[in-house]
Amino acid sequence: MFMDIQTFLESCIGQWFSQRSSYQFDTEKAESHKSELTVEWLNTDHSLLVSLCQEHRIDPNQAIGGQQVSWNSSVDYGQKKQTGSATMIIIPDSNTPKIGKIIQSFKSNPSSQGKYSLGEDEALNLTLEVGDFLMEERIWFASPNLRLRTSLMKGENGYSRTAFYSEIRRLPPQEVA
Amino acid sequence: MFMDIQTFLESCIGQWFSQRSSYQFDTEKAESHKSELTVEWLNTDHSLLVSLCQEHRIDPNQAIGGQQVSWNSSVDYGQKKQTGSATMIIIPDSNTPKIGKIIQSFKSNPSSQGKYSLGEDEALNLTLEVGDFLMEERIWFASPNLRLRTSLMKGENGYSRTAFYSEIRRLPPQEVA
Repeated sequence: MFMDIQTFLESCIGQWFSQRSSYQFDTEKAESHKSELTVEWLNTDHSLLVSLCQEHRIDPNQAIGGQQVSWNSSVDYGQKKQTGSATMIIIPDSNTPKIGKIIQSFKSNPSSQGKYSLGEDEALNLTLEVGDFLMEERIWFASPNLRLRTSLMKGENGYSRTAFYSEIRRLPPQEVA
Repeated sequence: MFMDIQTFLESCIGQWFSQRSSYQFDTEKAESHKSELTVEWLNTDHSLLVSLCQEHRIDPNQAIGGQQVSWNSSVDYGQKKQTGSATMIIIPDSNTPKIGKIIQSFKSNPSSQGKYSLGEDEALNLTLEVGDFLMEERIWFASPNLRLRTSLMKGENGYSRTAFYSEIRRLPPQEVA
């Protein structure tokens, strides 16, 4: 299957069990967390997409759509419950849709622009600004139901944190014949 | 800098502090480990390289060299100490050296053949057989002194284990003027 950006984004839609391992370079502290992720599609006429595009002076019709990602760490027994959501709008370059701009917004933070590129190896690479940090994220599929992600945060003093996510799709119960 | 396979392999040589996070799919168990890695270069006339090539009926002169990777988990306080080493021989395709064969050997296991490819994104992808498992490994540099690695093990019943490594180069103490 040839993976274009539309197909890639569609493959992300659904519910995922996400296992995160993170590593903080300065403190040499490793952590492990579990979460439920829900990835929903936003059409180009969705109010959230339209308002984010307008904020960044981009015509919403240039976007191919967006994703709303919500997380809930209730599955991580014994840890503080964390919930939240983030929105990502995808605006492909008109000539080469494998690369383009993204607009990202976390609930309380100001939204920011970044870049994406879908590689020959069918991995999606994102470059984002998150506060004072530059974040590089790489997302790829080992299989349709196993998504892998790495993220790398870079601050003024160099790399500060890396994280790896193994994400297994929550499938509906199989029907018995 | 354009990264060819020779440059990539040379960039791996040295001592690394390696932080591994692994996740077992069946038991949903996450683990975190630290280790010291030493990566040494093997010339094509090294006895270990020659004997592994002969075992696989490959002319040692077709190899560009090899790597011997040794690990020592003494830095992982409170964990059982683990030491070991593995050898990897690299045999590029004569026409397209960005892809080729590898021979890998763990100390006690029989050696096996695999494949490598160095992607446009300057990441090295390895496919190996380890016992009854197929292993996909991806190695890339965030900077000359920060190496990242993911590995994915696939058995008869699907994916079984994934691991992520953040590896920081151990630099010699800076000379004071």
